[in-house]
Amino acid sequence: MRTFASDNNAPIAPEILEAIVEANDGDAVGYGHDPYTERAKAEFREIFGAESDVYFTFNGTGANVVALSCLTQPYEAVICPATAHLQTDECGAFERFAGCKLLAVECEDGKLTVEHLQGFAHSSREEHHVQPRVVSISQSTEFGTLYEPAELRELCEFAHAQGWYVHMDGARISNAAAALGLGLREASRDLGIDVLSFGGTKNGLLGGEAVVFFDGSLHRGAAPFVRKQGMQLASKMRFIAAQFLALLQEDRWRTYADHANAMAKKLERGVAEIAGVRVTRPVRCNAVFATLDRTAIERIQKRFFFYVFDQAMPEARWMTHHATRPEDVDAFCRAIAEGLAQ
Amino acid sequence: MRTFASDNNAPIAPEILEAIVEANDGDAVGYGHDPYTERAKAEFREIFGAESDVYFTFNGTGANVVALSCLTQPYEAVICPATAHLQTDECGAFERFAGCKLLAVECEDGKLTVEHLQGFAHSSREEHHVQPRVVSISQSTEFGTLYEPAELRELCEFAHAQGWYVHMDGARISNAAAALGLGLREASRDLGIDVLSFGGTKNGLLGGEAVVFFDGSLHRGAAPFVRKQGMQLASKMRFIAAQFLALLQEDRWRTYADHANAMAKKLERGVAEIAGVRVTRPVRCNAVFATLDRTAIERIQKRFFFYVFDQAMPEARWMTHHATRPEDVDAFCRAIAEGLAQ
Amino acid sequence: MRTFASDNNAPIAPEILEAIVEANDGDAVGYGHDPYTERAKAEFREIFGAESDVYFTFNGTGANVVALSCLTQPYEAVICPATAHLQTDECGAFERFAGCKLLAVECEDGKLTVEHLQGFAHSSREEHHVQPRVVSISQSTEFGTLYEPAELRELCEFAHAQGWYVHMDGARISNAAAALGLGLREASRDLGIDVLSFGGTKNGLLGGEAVVFFDGSLHRGAAPFVRKQGMQLASKMRFIAAQFLALLQEDRWRTYADHANAMAKKLERGVAEIAGVRVTRPVRCNAVFATLDRTAIERIQKRFFFYVFDQAMPEARWMTHHATRPEDVDAFCRAIAEGLAQ
Amino acid sequence: MRTFASDNNAPIAPEILEAIVEANDGDAVGYGHDPYTERAKAEFREIFGAESDVYFTFNGTGANVVALSCLTQPYEAVICPATAHLQTDECGAFERFAGCKLLAVECEDGKLTVEHLQGFAHSSREEHHVQPRVVSISQSTEFGTLYEPAELRELCEFAHAQGWYVHMDGARISNAAAALGLGLREASRDLGIDVLSFGGTKNGLLGGEAVVFFDGSLHRGAAPFVRKQGMQLASKMRFIAAQFLALLQEDRWRTYADHANAMAKKLERGVAEIAGVRVTRPVRCNAVFATLDRTAIERIQKRFFFYVFDQAMPEARWMTHHATRPEDVDAFCRAIAEGLAQ
Repeated sequence: MRTFASDNNAPIAPEILEAIVEANDGDAVGYGHDPYTERAKAEFREIFGAESDVYFTFNGTGANVVALSCLTQPYEAVICPATAHLQTDECGAFERFAGCKLLAVECEDGKLTVEHLQGFAHSSREEHHVQPRVVSISQSTEFGTLYEPAELRELCEFAHAQGWYVHMDGARISNAAAALGLGLREASRDLGIDVLSFGGTKNGLLGGEAVVFFDGSLHRGAAPFVRKQGMQLASKMRFIAAQFLALLQEDRWRTYADHANAMAKKLERGVAEIAGVRVTRPVRCNAVFATLDRTAIERIQKRFFFYVFDQAMPEARWMTHHATRPEDVDAFCRAIAEGLAQ
Repeated sequence: MRTFASDNNAPIAPEILEAIVEANDGDAVGYGHDPYTERAKAEFREIFGAESDVYFTFNGTGANVVALSCLTQPYEAVICPATAHLQTDECGAFERFAGCKLLAVECEDGKLTVEHLQGFAHSSREEHHVQPRVVSISQSTEFGTLYEPAELRELCEFAHAQGWYVHMDGARISNAAAALGLGLREASRDLGIDVLSFGGTKNGLLGGEAVVFFDGSLHRGAAPFVRKQGMQLASKMRFIAAQFLALLQEDRWRTYADHANAMAKKLERGVAEIAGVRVTRPVRCNAVFATLDRTAIERIQKRFFFYVFDQAMPEARWMTHHATRPEDVDAFCRAIAEGLAQ
Repeated sequence: MRTFASDNNAPIAPEILEAIVEANDGDAVGYGHDPYTERAKAEFREIFGAESDVYFTFNGTGANVVALSCLTQPYEAVICPATAHLQTDECGAFERFAGCKLLAVECEDGKLTVEHLQGFAHSSREEHHVQPRVVSISQSTEFGTLYEPAELRELCEFAHAQGWYVHMDGARISNAAAALGLGLREASRDLGIDVLSFGGTKNGLLGGEAVVFFDGSLHRGAAPFVRKQGMQLASKMRFIAAQFLALLQEDRWRTYADHANAMAKKLERGVAEIAGVRVTRPVRCNAVFATLDRTAIERIQKRFFFYVFDQAMPEARWMTHHATRPEDVDAFCRAIAEGLAQ
Repeated sequence: MRTFASDNNAPIAPEILEAIVEANDGDAVGYGHDPYTERAKAEFREIFGAESDVYFTFNGTGANVVALSCLTQPYEAVICPATAHLQTDECGAFERFAGCKLLAVECEDGKLTVEHLQGFAHSSREEHHVQPRVVSISQSTEFGTLYEPAELRELCEFAHAQGWYVHMDGARISNAAAALGLGLREASRDLGIDVLSFGGTKNGLLGGEAVVFFDGSLHRGAAPFVRKQGMQLASKMRFIAAQFLALLQEDRWRTYADHANAMAKKLERGVAEIAGVRVTRPVRCNAVFATLDRTAIERIQKRFFFYVFDQAMPEARWMTHHATRPEDVDAFCRAIAEGLAQ
């Protein structure tokens, strides 16, 4: 049974599970001092550049909090969209752990612009006010939309000119890079991003994320301690590392992401033919946002569980993933049509 | 290749890995709203009582911090041994996340006594002083020693008489219960413990711990939020839950722990015959602490990696686990003898 | 030399200074166990009701943080205007100390409405999201505007219906009560407010604020500890207490505030006659906000220092206080006219 | 009525109060941008060296927390005596605000030695463990004892050799410098101290402390923000500054401290003649610790309030201050004698 609720409802991709099984061979020193972790880290450096410094974490909230805590003092602040996962879906983890304020900006389709940043550029340097220090953007966004490379380049240039860092919440960076036809480095570091939360869990892993500092000197030695103190240091690290190795090898990250993206496109086409469904956001990656009749939603949810993002509208979110099958999409479209027809 | 460095260097136990593979069947709703999690939680309630409330976490630091943060306000304090994992090996995670002070007590073989607690019983209730609120003990201890059931009962009674809670860091509760010949509930809740960090990772899991409140009303609704804010909420929860289900079923927790404990006993017997090795702590579970020549240690470490706990003495720690084979112990004993003989 | 920069640029009011001098008589037990503090607390209970519980603090940031920290857990949140002092001028003190998120709302003239609150009323109760717990409003607001009693009553009723508390940042509650012709209790507790940061420093004190819980059971015993841990417990408390006694006695709070308010009205009338000045907010208390030529502002600032709140507009803030003299206002109006005439 | 409970029970010294009255002249810009603050800061630089950077705070807890928070990251730690005010009397303020761990060391008469520090010198640099970063000592200590200059020099040299900073909690630095016959700089900076919490409240001020970084670059720009976020930035700063100016001018700090110290010596001599009183600590500054009959203590406390530091022994603490009169000491000695005689 497939659902369209979230890409984290997906199973483990077969090659990833196989990597776990293969890594389960005898003892391995804990906390990352094992050959799997060494190889996985080398693979990250291969992709993102030799200066990169990578830290595996358990989940996306952990990755974001570790990344941002390494870049900020508690009297500094992080600028992010009001709809950022960091702001809305992490239960204040960053505020509690780092003691920092988030400066959340209302924006369209989950995307910050230079205009938004300009409002913070001339902030007072006085002690009464938190000091902006990092801009955090999500690619792809929480709405499945994308920053174009030029947009990100412009954001990063503007931020750097202010002395700010740019963090990318890449819980779905694979979907974004695949959709843009870019490599992982081209889609992040090469555009000016400083630190990346590289997502694994939503792209076929059992679980695991990676914080990638593109310049290891950025965290000034803090990252290992912040990860540990942030409860994100796995003792049996080899099993996270082995998953990432499998994900990066043979460009599986792209294979999985391309498939998920294609399934969303198929879903978009499918619902385009159903009267009463209106797609509300550009479908660029693996999410389809749509509005439809409220009672129909409830009928459809009984057959396929999914979330309603905006109750007022109402606006539903449908997500695809590496294991979504074309026939699942067809079945879901039929369910939508039938739900609306009743 | 087996080591004697830590029980977290062990591989995944075969039945646990099989459970992961079996749980990898189609989609499942995230964050614990899946049938595996429901069944695992029911199994915990079956074992520990219907009032129990269980929260899976990623690792032991996370379990301890979530458990203790649910029981304390930031101006309260946790009494623990100076050698507690919480105090020495979690990089201040509790202080940072909860803002609380730990009151660390020097004690023997890692065990608190009522005498230690009495020193805090008449603490000032004035606002100048943090207020003791929880006693945290480890069972088995970080030295592989054990509290006898009567000792724990006495500690809990004393603590409760002061209005304090008792938390058990049970990273190795299975080893302890197995060694004491008790059931899991008999070894914790029935002795007066209020909250248990139930360890899985050190007893055969890929990764996963569980915070068990024996009375779900203790955390006053805080636990789900504290776990999420503490970056310990797994999206693909089914894979932690499935591991715990397999661990609890057919008393595998005991099978694995019994084996690990037996291997430590075998190691104790083995080194007893080697001149120059002196076992320094009672061997009750899966740890052997011993002192031996410093240069011999270095020679042995080149063949079998392990940690020296007390550099001054020096005192080495050797740990066994579910997958330690008798021939591994034999080989290790030979390596020790040879290291000393040089 | 008088300025119009802030009411905290004012000297100590003569009766307040006299009270300090009188309290400087021999030894007194520290930390509030002195007769001045007892009497001052009794005076607060007399005014606000016998169930009230009052805690003196050093400054307004301290008062707000102590008040709000007593009402929230770190996974809960405080709803406030985006222009609240708490949000913009306290350098993230609340986030750092309490670990909580502020939910800042864009609103007009610094005033929250029930419509704003409705947006949070149906928030998810799920662990992914911080849980609104307190509404914090400023009376008078940071713009010198006022909530009408009926508006506050409506806000409080709505908040209480959601199970939320309402906190009033009353750094200028005296100015507000005076302007509304209400008593202090009528202007706060009787409208539904739960906890008040009662301002002293901006109304003639050397320094000192008071957190008043209208129902002492609200903080569940936490307040003394939170104040101490929040670095807000004065050892020589008698000197804060004596100031508050003098402020409350003979309704001096109202005398000072009435004067300050009247001076702002006089200033409003004065600038109404100056071409090129447009008053931008209703002048209800002791603040006048106005827009005028940018270069004129710079010329005037050389003679009378004041702050520009909105650089873009530009919008200047001019504040009066208990010691502002009519001739100061006249001189300032002349300076403004001359600055504009050049 | 004089007491011997604490030096913070003392009144404001006449010259300090006069300075407050004189500073109450018209308006002054807030938050330290006033001439009194400028002059007071210049006076500090005059005394401690031009590289010094000074931040006034409200109270001693605030000073300690601001000083130490500027020198640490949350995964670092502060080594201090188990009896440090910071550890025992500040309700965990540092842990909550900074998120750091204190490493509290059992030691004699409140004094750390190099031997104590050596235990931390070879701490693991691994991420599992908090990293010692600052040594905090109190001069004079909480027991009224003193570090000799050579002892402090040795401590500082050892600490610096490890890459650690040394903080002096100088709530009673004036008493210490006076007792040692040293200047303020000779008693702190010149011995190797990096940051000083300079106490005012216990030496005649209404209230006010100062954090002095002897090298302003130490805090890397953080101090203004940490003070504000730590709720320690006074708006009417001129009144703290004016007190410090008066305290530093004409060496009043020494006059007050010398007097307090002399009164303690007189008290020591007085009780030496009373059978049943045994002084338990060297009387070096303004504290006398003594043990005497428990029931006698209660009788004496009814006439002169004071604190019992060690209930078990019992050990009483008697403190003198700038305003203690010889006749107060005589009266107290009589009360002690009479209490014991009953």
